[in-house]
Amino acid sequence: MKHLLSLEKLNRSDMEYILNNTMLFKKNRGKETDLFLKNQVWALLFSKSSTRTRVSFEVGLRELGADVIFLNAKDIQLGRGEPIKDTARVLGRMVHGAIIRTYAQQEVEEFAAYSNIPTINALTDDEHPCQILTDIFTFQEIREPIYAKTVAFFGDGSSNVANSWLFASSKLGFNLAIASPANFQPKKNTLIRSGAVEEKSDNHTKVFKLPSGSRLILTDLIDVAAKDADLLYTDVWVSMGKEAELETRINQLSPYQVNKSVVALAKKGAPVMHCLPAYRGKEIDEETFEANADAIFTQAENRLHTQKSILRWITL
Amino acid sequence: MKHLLSLEKLNRSDMEYILNNTMLFKKNRGKETDLFLKNQVWALLFSKSSTRTRVSFEVGLRELGADVIFLNAKDIQLGRGEPIKDTARVLGRMVHGAIIRTYAQQEVEEFAAYSNIPTINALTDDEHPCQILTDIFTFQEIREPIYAKTVAFFGDGSSNVANSWLFASSKLGFNLAIASPANFQPKKNTLIRSGAVEEKSDNHTKVFKLPSGSRLILTDLIDVAAKDADLLYTDVWVSMGKEAELETRINQLSPYQVNKSVVALAKKGAPVMHCLPAYRGKEIDEETFEANADAIFTQAENRLHTQKSILRWITL
Amino acid sequence: MKHLLSLEKLNRSDMEYILNNTMLFKKNRGKETDLFLKNQVWALLFSKSSTRTRVSFEVGLRELGADVIFLNAKDIQLGRGEPIKDTARVLGRMVHGAIIRTYAQQEVEEFAAYSNIPTINALTDDEHPCQILTDIFTFQEIREPIYAKTVAFFGDGSSNVANSWLFASSKLGFNLAIASPANFQPKKNTLIRSGAVEEKSDNHTKVFKLPSGSRLILTDLIDVAAKDADLLYTDVWVSMGKEAELETRINQLSPYQVNKSVVALAKKGAPVMHCLPAYRGKEIDEETFEANADAIFTQAENRLHTQKSILRWITL
Repeated sequence: MKHLLSLEKLNRSDMEYILNNTMLFKKNRGKETDLFLKNQVWALLFSKSSTRTRVSFEVGLRELGADVIFLNAKDIQLGRGEPIKDTARVLGRMVHGAIIRTYAQQEVEEFAAYSNIPTINALTDDEHPCQILTDIFTFQEIREPIYAKTVAFFGDGSSNVANSWLFASSKLGFNLAIASPANFQPKKNTLIRSGAVEEKSDNHTKVFKLPSGSRLILTDLIDVAAKDADLLYTDVWVSMGKEAELETRINQLSPYQVNKSVVALAKKGAPVMHCLPAYRGKEIDEETFEANADAIFTQAENRLHTQKSILRWITL
Repeated sequence: MKHLLSLEKLNRSDMEYILNNTMLFKKNRGKETDLFLKNQVWALLFSKSSTRTRVSFEVGLRELGADVIFLNAKDIQLGRGEPIKDTARVLGRMVHGAIIRTYAQQEVEEFAAYSNIPTINALTDDEHPCQILTDIFTFQEIREPIYAKTVAFFGDGSSNVANSWLFASSKLGFNLAIASPANFQPKKNTLIRSGAVEEKSDNHTKVFKLPSGSRLILTDLIDVAAKDADLLYTDVWVSMGKEAELETRINQLSPYQVNKSVVALAKKGAPVMHCLPAYRGKEIDEETFEANADAIFTQAENRLHTQKSILRWITL
Repeated sequence: MKHLLSLEKLNRSDMEYILNNTMLFKKNRGKETDLFLKNQVWALLFSKSSTRTRVSFEVGLRELGADVIFLNAKDIQLGRGEPIKDTARVLGRMVHGAIIRTYAQQEVEEFAAYSNIPTINALTDDEHPCQILTDIFTFQEIREPIYAKTVAFFGDGSSNVANSWLFASSKLGFNLAIASPANFQPKKNTLIRSGAVEEKSDNHTKVFKLPSGSRLILTDLIDVAAKDADLLYTDVWVSMGKEAELETRINQLSPYQVNKSVVALAKKGAPVMHCLPAYRGKEIDEETFEANADAIFTQAENRLHTQKSILRWITL
């Protein structure tokens, strides 16, 4: 029984298997002959609403032959009302797989442990594995192999998206530069779990060596992260559940906007990517967003193809 | 790429094509052989809830081979949270068509412009094209060709339903009489856009000539509208989003109830139609409603068949 | 046109037909060849949310070939906004069957009367027929024929679940012992409708003869109900809609918890069953729940199979 609960626990060969298969699913869209989920019903359990994640999974599952039941926060109160282990044992006898979008990582772990069906993390507070696998695929599709390249992340370096980037870089051998204010840098515990070993540091920047041989750079200087980057990446500053911190976050993160002057520092032609929704004037400006719209909406579309590849891997 | 965003912009031959095909879909229900939406997934984006519109589209799409994702106001906040142009570009790469029920007409127009997929207006503040095409089909099914006949509309003459009736009559050559208090008559701008040209007026009644050669009558006198009408039509007075105006609307519109004495003025056998939900004792009385229940529930059912015909037209 | 609105009105031979077919559906899951709901769309109308009931019906319907539209309280306000008879007449022309979970029994009765499509009660304030048919199937699957055996129910004896147990026992010839405080015993009217005839009584216990020849025992003494029982059964004390009575219910019902000492009184090996969600430390303790988890989650899974059998019966 396989699960995709985090990139922390997914090994390199499985990541590569998923990434390598994705192009086949993209090419064959609309011409699927191997409906390997036929006669299956999968459940989407979403404690947080989401258009992109929901639609990409629903369409993907259906194009692979499955039917889908979408259960939102009101339909199913994961961890409230009923212990997760009970919900998991009930659903595990009725449906063939589960896609879960929730808050605590512990919830998806517990669901997987009790349900006895393939379980996929479609966003928790800790990780967003489907998104980052998609992002890596997209970079490789529109540019070049990611190995030894440098991804520059701007914004909340302690977020689920940043965490998953970190675990991916620790295995796949690309460099990751995270530009964020000191209190938005990756948590110590995340660094330890990623296997990062500090090599050097100054007042603004720390450099770590990752198990894959690549480098992790944590800095509060935008220029240090952006310089010669192969990919510029940002994410919404105030995601669902963080609205209370809105003002603080915007104040502290606003110097880290991805805009023309950041792009000018990166490698020529380096794409800007964004996992959406995008707030113009906040983490990115309108001009930079629209100049990179092709890359960004290809990235969004690739959720569909990458997740089909994940479904193939998880049910093999 | 075709869209059905309004009757204002739908030309006469397209209306007739849709109307002419509807009976085939009605006759063949349950015996479909041409599943022309097979392997497609369509999204229903509904900012307002609706049983009838939702069920008729979901059933119709499925009977034509498609799968459906229903996204309600909470799932997808059209125009809030994320610009419509972004949502449209994401969904346009994942699903094969969109059915939108929302407030501003501008939202469906913008979605259609950016999504690159067929887009259908399933109700906006301005228009309700699927409903009025259904109503015309129903009248023609249970009575006779609508050309040169007179439709009498009672209630809010500035509503989306009245607007779509007006644009239909300006093209299809039937007369339209709207009985409503002065402040509920069609907006000047709507009249201009319909091509209505005033012919004569008195204190209570104005008569316009429409481009199709038929007449538009705006009056605050029930008798003028009801007299010799071929079809009596009414709609809920306080629709979703108008609850704040409840008392004013009921007070002003209550003289315009469709009841036995209104029916007595119309042509013998003229049906009463209602696009539901019906509030007995308000826009219609229980006796008149139940006496016309066959027509009214046939009208409701015909949403299914007419929308299949729209889906056929839009995907050709 | 058949409906399953209550066990009160379902006759013995129909119950037995449904129960006898259930094992076939369980054995053939995943290998269905007779997709007797193919090309049908069924509506789930749920005024109360529910994971188990919803998922078991959605999966079951799909595995029999049908498509499903789920309409929750917000989508469809049964009995508010629009009279049920209108909603029923509209949906009856669009979908092929309806599964309804709501408050008043009257609502499902009225829907069935007007819709002209097969209608199934998936929980009302009065009855929970699908659950109790499932429970009887499960007991017979994991133990032995229920005829002449004794089911002991602990908790709110006036609940929908208890009512359905009572109507089942009045027809299928098993004994039913209900242990509850005096004010939670079955309502007089329910007893009359079940055909129960009082045989004897003392301060704590009343014994009735049921039409099927079996006995109904109402008692406020746990030991009287538990002694030599073949099945111990409990249900949540504070179900949806009863939150206002939370404290009173918990205070009064807490002596009736199913735990080790209750189990010790029953027949050796008698299973404990629970229709979930379970509140540990309230109606059942963690140890007893987990010791009986196999039976309880088999019971949950059997909703799926039993409801398929109901769908077979109702559409024949």
